[in-house]
Amino acid sequence: MRANVHRFSLVDPGDVSGLHEAIDAGQIDPVEIVAVIGKTHGNGLVNDYTRGYLMMSLSHLIAAKTGVTPEAVCKRVPFIFSGGVEGVLSPHYAVFTVSPGDAPPAGGGPSLAIGVAFTPKLQPQDIGRRRQIDLTAAAVEDAMAKAGIETYSDVHFVQVKGPAFTLAEIVAAASAGTPCASDNPGKLMAFGRAASALGVGKALKEITPERATEQAVLRDFTAYSSVASVSAGVEIQTNEVVVVGLSPRWSGPLTIGHVAMSDALDINAVVALARGLGFTPEPQIRADEAGRIRAAFAKCEAQRDGTVRGRPHTMLNDGDIDQQRHIRAAVGAIIASILNDTAVFVSGGAEHQGPDNGGMLAVIAEKARSRAAVE
Amino acid sequence: MRANVHRFSLVDPGDVSGLHEAIDAGQIDPVEIVAVIGKTHGNGLVNDYTRGYLMMSLSHLIAAKTGVTPEAVCKRVPFIFSGGVEGVLSPHYAVFTVSPGDAPPAGGGPSLAIGVAFTPKLQPQDIGRRRQIDLTAAAVEDAMAKAGIETYSDVHFVQVKGPAFTLAEIVAAASAGTPCASDNPGKLMAFGRAASALGVGKALKEITPERATEQAVLRDFTAYSSVASVSAGVEIQTNEVVVVGLSPRWSGPLTIGHVAMSDALDINAVVALARGLGFTPEPQIRADEAGRIRAAFAKCEAQRDGTVRGRPHTMLNDGDIDQQRHIRAAVGAIIASILNDTAVFVSGGAEHQGPDNGGMLAVIAEKARSRAAVE
Amino acid sequence: MRANVHRFSLVDPGDVSGLHEAIDAGQIDPVEIVAVIGKTHGNGLVNDYTRGYLMMSLSHLIAAKTGVTPEAVCKRVPFIFSGGVEGVLSPHYAVFTVSPGDAPPAGGGPSLAIGVAFTPKLQPQDIGRRRQIDLTAAAVEDAMAKAGIETYSDVHFVQVKGPAFTLAEIVAAASAGTPCASDNPGKLMAFGRAASALGVGKALKEITPERATEQAVLRDFTAYSSVASVSAGVEIQTNEVVVVGLSPRWSGPLTIGHVAMSDALDINAVVALARGLGFTPEPQIRADEAGRIRAAFAKCEAQRDGTVRGRPHTMLNDGDIDQQRHIRAAVGAIIASILNDTAVFVSGGAEHQGPDNGGMLAVIAEKARSRAAVE
Amino acid sequence: MRANVHRFSLVDPGDVSGLHEAIDAGQIDPVEIVAVIGKTHGNGLVNDYTRGYLMMSLSHLIAAKTGVTPEAVCKRVPFIFSGGVEGVLSPHYAVFTVSPGDAPPAGGGPSLAIGVAFTPKLQPQDIGRRRQIDLTAAAVEDAMAKAGIETYSDVHFVQVKGPAFTLAEIVAAASAGTPCASDNPGKLMAFGRAASALGVGKALKEITPERATEQAVLRDFTAYSSVASVSAGVEIQTNEVVVVGLSPRWSGPLTIGHVAMSDALDINAVVALARGLGFTPEPQIRADEAGRIRAAFAKCEAQRDGTVRGRPHTMLNDGDIDQQRHIRAAVGAIIASILNDTAVFVSGGAEHQGPDNGGMLAVIAEKARSRAAVE
Repeated sequence: MRANVHRFSLVDPGDVSGLHEAIDAGQIDPVEIVAVIGKTHGNGLVNDYTRGYLMMSLSHLIAAKTGVTPEAVCKRVPFIFSGGVEGVLSPHYAVFTVSPGDAPPAGGGPSLAIGVAFTPKLQPQDIGRRRQIDLTAAAVEDAMAKAGIETYSDVHFVQVKGPAFTLAEIVAAASAGTPCASDNPGKLMAFGRAASALGVGKALKEITPERATEQAVLRDFTAYSSVASVSAGVEIQTNEVVVVGLSPRWSGPLTIGHVAMSDALDINAVVALARGLGFTPEPQIRADEAGRIRAAFAKCEAQRDGTVRGRPHTMLNDGDIDQQRHIRAAVGAIIASILNDTAVFVSGGAEHQGPDNGGMLAVIAEKARSRAAVE
Repeated sequence: MRANVHRFSLVDPGDVSGLHEAIDAGQIDPVEIVAVIGKTHGNGLVNDYTRGYLMMSLSHLIAAKTGVTPEAVCKRVPFIFSGGVEGVLSPHYAVFTVSPGDAPPAGGGPSLAIGVAFTPKLQPQDIGRRRQIDLTAAAVEDAMAKAGIETYSDVHFVQVKGPAFTLAEIVAAASAGTPCASDNPGKLMAFGRAASALGVGKALKEITPERATEQAVLRDFTAYSSVASVSAGVEIQTNEVVVVGLSPRWSGPLTIGHVAMSDALDINAVVALARGLGFTPEPQIRADEAGRIRAAFAKCEAQRDGTVRGRPHTMLNDGDIDQQRHIRAAVGAIIASILNDTAVFVSGGAEHQGPDNGGMLAVIAEKARSRAAVE
Repeated sequence: MRANVHRFSLVDPGDVSGLHEAIDAGQIDPVEIVAVIGKTHGNGLVNDYTRGYLMMSLSHLIAAKTGVTPEAVCKRVPFIFSGGVEGVLSPHYAVFTVSPGDAPPAGGGPSLAIGVAFTPKLQPQDIGRRRQIDLTAAAVEDAMAKAGIETYSDVHFVQVKGPAFTLAEIVAAASAGTPCASDNPGKLMAFGRAASALGVGKALKEITPERATEQAVLRDFTAYSSVASVSAGVEIQTNEVVVVGLSPRWSGPLTIGHVAMSDALDINAVVALARGLGFTPEPQIRADEAGRIRAAFAKCEAQRDGTVRGRPHTMLNDGDIDQQRHIRAAVGAIIASILNDTAVFVSGGAEHQGPDNGGMLAVIAEKARSRAAVE
Repeated sequence: MRANVHRFSLVDPGDVSGLHEAIDAGQIDPVEIVAVIGKTHGNGLVNDYTRGYLMMSLSHLIAAKTGVTPEAVCKRVPFIFSGGVEGVLSPHYAVFTVSPGDAPPAGGGPSLAIGVAFTPKLQPQDIGRRRQIDLTAAAVEDAMAKAGIETYSDVHFVQVKGPAFTLAEIVAAASAGTPCASDNPGKLMAFGRAASALGVGKALKEITPERATEQAVLRDFTAYSSVASVSAGVEIQTNEVVVVGLSPRWSGPLTIGHVAMSDALDINAVVALARGLGFTPEPQIRADEAGRIRAAFAKCEAQRDGTVRGRPHTMLNDGDIDQQRHIRAAVGAIIASILNDTAVFVSGGAEHQGPDNGGMLAVIAEKARSRAAVE
């Protein structure tokens, strides 16, 4: 098997001409698309419709190119979009493909491996609860098996996208006798991210089963996964799970690494990851080297005690700009400044995703030697 | 003469307890305060009243402690506040003091030097026009002379705060037959920043007199000052000018440096400035070293062509969050991540302040050797 | 000919189940749809993608139901959406249909008549210029002829939707030697609305040809149309024109009226229009009567001198909430409170659309007697 | 005793020239000021510093004019400010004065009566709890007694302003073992408004003691006061209570009335109140009559089930504009359009203040006959 990742700029959530052209040029076989992860123009909160718009645009395109219905495409391919391109961030989407590929060369080292799975449909009252934790854990195991990744430490990135619900749906659930974990739509999104992250950590043995419980959700932040990245949106109804890691069974030009960020200012972690992937940051990666980067995924959050490195921040008291927009702008810029690449997928709300008050970063890049070999 | 800079955290624009306590403890003699520059909680746009609130709070405090009226304090001391502490930024104010001090030791090298001046009152119709350019240039020369700085290259930071006007005032000016450079309050602020920056550049010979003209305002962005930082606010009526540099005539523990930032991602410039001031960024300055930082001042702007490093950004199309808030969050975080210090004065709107689409950064720090000598 | 208007609630810009069900139930023949006008969830500014999303959703639905491509549907049917459902407003879309219908009964009085037309494609540099004025006027005449409306005063509502452009497109136009009327995306939208409104007024003889010129755009606000309502969005490239009025050649259950609003507080105008359509507002129309309302369309704007009825407002100085969002919330609520109906299409930016600082309101309702006849 | 109310426009929270001039002109004796209630420019949420700014400005002015310290003024005079002048609303403050006045004429009917009281200091952990309910009830009884109002139904308006707390303070309380009712600053403000309103209703016998309990806070919305209006802000530390009603013991030109609003569109209630005060709304009060209005105070809220009159609204799902800003813009405009007066104090968050999902409106006006007598 051979995995590839193509990243396209997104002028408008309805403009998928980048993928369209790549398909027409024969660079991507649309039947080989296994997942799409992207960063769209909206606010990344409950009333962000750019995620659904891009999903509709891409599913129609892939449907037309593969001769199935858009609904069939959506059932097969996770479309995981996070809104919010604050500051220097650039809207984009990364298309993951898997092709039969060559048999890996003997002794060639591992290559990028991808597996995908879905949970059953989740109801509003499932969000933030045991059912979401356990179904997510099962889906991660399923995706890991499909990817042929045998060792937990070879998993470097697990992207989950779960459902969000509007106030009307939350009220309806409560009226039906099944109250949700929160009656606030934004807060319920946080519950969903938290439970899903605990599910990832449970599956990957980062969190023991006794700690990966409903009681830990949004409470025990010492329980976390350092490879989980979870988003939520009103446009989907299941937890969609994409597991990305390294496996000697796969061939291909790509590798992946990840790092936990201890807080919003942990730029040293970003530099360390860059070095680990064979880059030479000074501290910024030079433009020619930066061309090796295929995608970058990060989670971050505004520190709950109202400070960063001992000084007060204002993100959690702000009635004009949501805390997630603040922190995405800040952490996104820090990562972009090292990577020399602004098409970073940065998502706020890092509950149980990376250390408390911090987050995580995963980068997919061409293998350092593959380029050296060409030169 | 001996200059010092004390920085205080700002919980609330009405809470000036930090300075209050420092005065009561004898750490600051209130008559020696020559300027205050700070970053407040508001949006940094026309309807930001946190600047005026802090000015009122500080002027009343200093008045009470020095036995004069708040009005007299405001006439003597420039209070230059910029709203907007997006992302990781922390609200704060830096108090500049000048005391008679010791005679500088022979061969001791230059120390921080400060001078202050004010232009006459500016009317709405003066903003962005020749009168503002030339009065600002004259004020810079005046402040430089007061600071005893003889060489233009020894000036490392010129902070200017000029007046902004509300729509009602702009309409009144037009009705009186003296239309303003723009009938949009936010745009007129940009005109004011631009003309003031050209005035600084003209005074410091960074821009030739033929190019520092009304015609260049918001048009010829190749004309710029790399030490100017200009803000505007409705709470003042003159251009207030603070010139900060180095002079062998001054003694004291502090030094200053500056750097031009070529664009929003120019983190290498930040690192270079840190090294120039004797820090050892890795790329982040360690916490113990970071304690030497006394203040940091930056200007930045959203790139006008809609891209950063070739990829599209969305800052200039955003109807929910002003472009200045976006770019402050991003550039502020990048600077804070290197300096390991979030109390950075970052101001948007860098017209003619640093290279086009970039900006500038000035840092005041304890001299490297002064701490070494202590150890 | 017989016109009808069906209004559907919009849960999400991707959810067009209301129309879907009406088609499936045989209540609407999709080939008879001639226009859709709606109010979506976005901010109504440049970066509002909910308009494009709804257009995609509806065009795909109608395409599937009529056996043509979505592109063909978009060429035939104007989809005119305005973002922004501030305050009590409710997202919705009104579907206009035309069926062969009965011959009008002799002496039966006029009924609702509809005509549609499109201008050729407009470039960024056409916006706010003579070309847009004249092409819009020609399209209005064309649509009026198609509607069989012979008298100008029988036209009660002309909805126009024109193109908006992002910063990147504006910069590209300038680089190509054809600078736009403004280099600010939001301001350019205002130019486009203004020129289009002048085109409507010119066509309907509300404005003499000598006054409906490029020079009048955003300058001579005494030139206006009291039936024009113009929006702009990035998702289209021509001016789409829908003319709605009364004609004795048409049959059907509906009528229409309009009123100019002299300023944002002109609630008496709303009441007068309600009475003119046979309602009995007290001042609110009772719920049973309000069921006769089929659609309501309004334009409004923040008063340019910064006051309303002599007292200052803050809409034009606000850096957190755009002036259009403020004024839509206010005027929308006033209209909704009289009509007892929150599904009002309220659009900000009323340049040359209704009296200066005011706006206009058009209401389509079942004829009063038609219901009486039933009782 | 004789009460009066003077309303001043507020250009800037630091500009109290209106009151200054009225004092200098002898129109207001500053020692007779008993309360100030106003609407400021901020967002009305946790990070709104315009309330504190205006309080500082007014307290310094009154202190200077009465020869006491600002702190002493603040202890004597409740300053109750609500941020948020969305839409057509105009920033202003109403100054309440009490002078010895004439003995009321026999048979002259009741006049405006005012009483003021303060609770002891409230801690973060008191907010939304029994202590806040009961201390507020006691303060209302105290203020009513001071006002000489003997009958509960003669109380038409009770304005309460209570403390709000930032995240840092909430975290500190939790760390100290006294967790707050919510760990979200905005939500805790809601708890405080709710408990205070229950306290008012308990004192005025609108709510039985068994129902005015901590358990009812934000749960039993059938328990409400139809005269309570409660705000919260970080700038104060006690519940400040102003009781306004009618009493035959008072003389003076003013009267007051109030009405409950059943929901956001209840314009008929506004008209009924206007008629009750002797106005002749058509439905708008003519400008000459509107001059009799001295102040108007309203509470409102976004309907919790996500609808208004059966149609969905979007206020509770919006991540860009807070629900309170939406609803103030809407209800404020409706009230202003009837009163022909935009200087309306409209405050969001009407928990237990008026019927569930609705709110209340109180208007102070010159007595109808007093003007008639003049003519």
